Amino acid sequence: MGERVVVIGGDAAGMAAASQARRLKGPGELEIVVFERGYFTSYSACGIPYWVGGEVGGPEELIARTPAEHRARDIDLRLRTEVVEIDVPGQRVRSRELDTGREKWTGYDKLVIATGATPIRPPLPGIDADGVHGVQSLDDGQALIARLESIPGRRAVVVGAGYIGVEMAEALIRRGFEVAMVSRGAEPMATLDPDMGMLIRKAMQGMGIQVVCNAGLTAVRTDAQGRVTGVVTAEAEYPADVMVLGIGVRPATDLARAAGLPLGESGGLLTDLAMRVRGHENIWAGGDCVEVLDLVSGTERHIPLGTHANKHGQVIGSGVGGGYATFPGVVGTAVSKVCDLEVARTGLLERDARAAGLQYLTVTIESTSRSGYYPGAAPMTVKMLAERRTGRLLGVQIVGREGAAKRIDTAAVALTAHLTVDQIVALDLGYAPPFSPVWDPIQVAARKAVTAVRRDGPHPAASTGRVGQGER
Amino acid sequence: MGERVVVIGGDAAGMAAASQARRLKGPGELEIVVFERGYFTSYSACGIPYWVGGEVGGPEELIARTPAEHRARDIDLRLRTEVVEIDVPGQRVRSRELDTGREKWTGYDKLVIATGATPIRPPLPGIDADGVHGVQSLDDGQALIARLESIPGRRAVVVGAGYIGVEMAEALIRRGFEVAMVSRGAEPMATLDPDMGMLIRKAMQGMGIQVVCNAGLTAVRTDAQGRVTGVVTAEAEYPADVMVLGIGVRPATDLARAAGLPLGESGGLLTDLAMRVRGHENIWAGGDCVEVLDLVSGTERHIPLGTHANKHGQVIGSGVGGGYATFPGVVGTAVSKVCDLEVARTGLLERDARAAGLQYLTVTIESTSRSGYYPGAAPMTVKMLAERRTGRLLGVQIVGREGAAKRIDTAAVALTAHLTVDQIVALDLGYAPPFSPVWDPIQVAARKAVTAVRRDGPHPAASTGRVGQGER
Repeated sequence: MGERVVVIGGDAAGMAAASQARRLKGPGELEIVVFERGYFTSYSACGIPYWVGGEVGGPEELIARTPAEHRARDIDLRLRTEVVEIDVPGQRVRSRELDTGREKWTGYDKLVIATGATPIRPPLPGIDADGVHGVQSLDDGQALIARLESIPGRRAVVVGAGYIGVEMAEALIRRGFEVAMVSRGAEPMATLDPDMGMLIRKAMQGMGIQVVCNAGLTAVRTDAQGRVTGVVTAEAEYPADVMVLGIGVRPATDLARAAGLPLGESGGLLTDLAMRVRGHENIWAGGDCVEVLDLVSGTERHIPLGTHANKHGQVIGSGVGGGYATFPGVVGTAVSKVCDLEVARTGLLERDARAAGLQYLTVTIESTSRSGYYPGAAPMTVKMLAERRTGRLLGVQIVGREGAAKRIDTAAVALTAHLTVDQIVALDLGYAPPFSPVWDPIQVAARKAVTAVRRDGPHPAASTGRVGQGER
Repeated sequence: MGERVVVIGGDAAGMAAASQARRLKGPGELEIVVFERGYFTSYSACGIPYWVGGEVGGPEELIARTPAEHRARDIDLRLRTEVVEIDVPGQRVRSRELDTGREKWTGYDKLVIATGATPIRPPLPGIDADGVHGVQSLDDGQALIARLESIPGRRAVVVGAGYIGVEMAEALIRRGFEVAMVSRGAEPMATLDPDMGMLIRKAMQGMGIQVVCNAGLTAVRTDAQGRVTGVVTAEAEYPADVMVLGIGVRPATDLARAAGLPLGESGGLLTDLAMRVRGHENIWAGGDCVEVLDLVSGTERHIPLGTHANKHGQVIGSGVGGGYATFPGVVGTAVSKVCDLEVARTGLLERDARAAGLQYLTVTIESTSRSGYYPGAAPMTVKMLAERRTGRLLGVQIVGREGAAKRIDTAAVALTAHLTVDQIVALDLGYAPPFSPVWDPIQVAARKAVTAVRRDGPHPAASTGRVGQGER
């Protein structure tokens, strides 16, 4: 028998690591044991809002590969089994079968930590009431849908206005609920600057969603049976037959912390470029439980996204299987569909740039997804941040309609390659009337940024921060 | 009075140059004279097929800026006036008013040549018959539409299977014609490798277009009145009530050639990076009459595209107006809509790579535009060329449906930045179920290319060319 690798967590990162390792080494060389506390493996948590909204079926459709498929490839998958302790010096983990309570130790030569993230539940009165739902796992999705189908009331409150909160508000409207979305931020989508977030708010309001900003949750109101009846903020109370938590997640690293492994400011595990936990040559970590290097600001951040988790798994599996690959970092790209809007961002927001000590200027332009005369040309707002003096691209945010979101990829590659706004103006991007105006909207923004950088001159003022907001 | 700039040609490049120069210098500093032999300025020739197909109105809709708008900005625009001679040593041009035949000389301090391209008309019997139409200018478009509306016959033959030929075949089908498309190539769209062109042929055939490949035109058949009745190839004859020429264009540089200005292999003017004609500090040239540097192969090529013409004009206008800008070159990006397909390419085809002396390997993958479970996920074929040993990206071709074409921009920026396929796998591209699978199709292809480059090993065989065709 060869080596044994133990993988903790059977979703995207963990199973991608296991699969890639198996591709490189057969069962005679490498035993692969995966512990997963849930019933499912390799599923798309990002698809849950669309399932709730009735746009996709589920949960089967959201599962990329079933436990049986993994087992057929000689992966020893132990479902409903939670790892409760990692003994790093002893190279072993203690697991507990959730249905029987039975515990045992399993030794490892190599360890992969892919424990994911945990939804944030603010410690408020009533937060554990019947009818308060998270949407992190397929089990959560199933429980929420069962609730929506069984309750007579039609009032839903979504707490939090990030991607999940916004997507869930839309899903609930689609199911015929009255929806209020309550959040602490000045505008929905704190992953955008507030001037762009405002566009999201207007679209959501246009769809009939009550958008409540600058509002901190203080309590969850319940009835005598312990069922949720309302959501309370400092200023008002919103009646609710069901409440969905979309405040965000934090890295699920209690196990790693207890084992003395290195964590960053967000609580995510810190790794090297090969996704090995820092200081530990035989322990890897990836997915929503790690911090990743932000290549634009040069800092570590927690960015839980399925696409990163898959890439981490691929890199980890290569390392575990004796191959070689690295994950160089991210530039902060994210896209989302909100009502009839497409929303995208990459790089730094204004607050990120300020925090990183970067001096920048901003421009905002309006363009269209296709040539203005071509049917279906839809408006698109592009905001661009460029570094003062150098003109280096720092970030792009897009709010538009069909054809808007994936344009962010152009900016994402430009950020990776450290292009300046001058260089972006000269890029050879695809042009034909059904797909783009003769200057792609990204380039319209870059042209305006070039002018702004030139006007700003070679000697920036001493203050840090924004120097010019382009008019619309 | 200050300097005078004379611009020859009032379409995209010429008028963009004039407008940008005017932005930088007022009429007291710079007199701008534009000679244009047609009736229109600044129009989208790329929109003509959609006008013929009835998808957009025309010609007004296709005009970005009218002669009156240009004149209001102090641009001295002389329509229906053709420049017939450039006297380089004397710094003057001879022009002829087309309606009166009147000629005169106009001196210049600076000259901009933006004479565009001329449709190729093979010197065959009958080629000038009544009913043989080009689609290069708005006048051409108007004449063709008038013909289509007046003739009783419903049989159309399109000669040539490039972008224009393919788009015109589709436009004619939309108008209810029976359409045959005849071309010399092995498959339609010689801007793609034949294995990708085959996908276009199948889609066109599915739409009811008769696609005739490997067929050289030998004559145009006419009736006693000199009207087209058929198109003759070596093997067959195709009855035609109207014939559309879409064979391609060549740079319209007879004037420049007569003036002794430097031309490249294609007959296009050769310029420096500031778009000044080589060896001439006060003459600029841009748009469809110049060759551009292909940054991937390192050679000059003639690539007539409206988006390049606009960029050239911008750069020229900056130079003429005393500013500074350059056009660094292209990577060969083009996108097109063909029937219900989206088609895109960037970088080198196999034959381009061989001609450039580059050793390469190819992979082809099938993926989808959205997460497989999301409604509207459409199939997409991606072919990728990577350099042997280095793994540097050399080219990408995409044939798919909605959401396919503009993905080429990711590859275009990657080519500009000289990224390797390994680096493409690690890119932080936008992911959400409505927009992309968890690995973007470009990255699915890059992953396969990484494997192929590794398998190929460090010591390439001596032969040049393709070493591996990825299975579908």
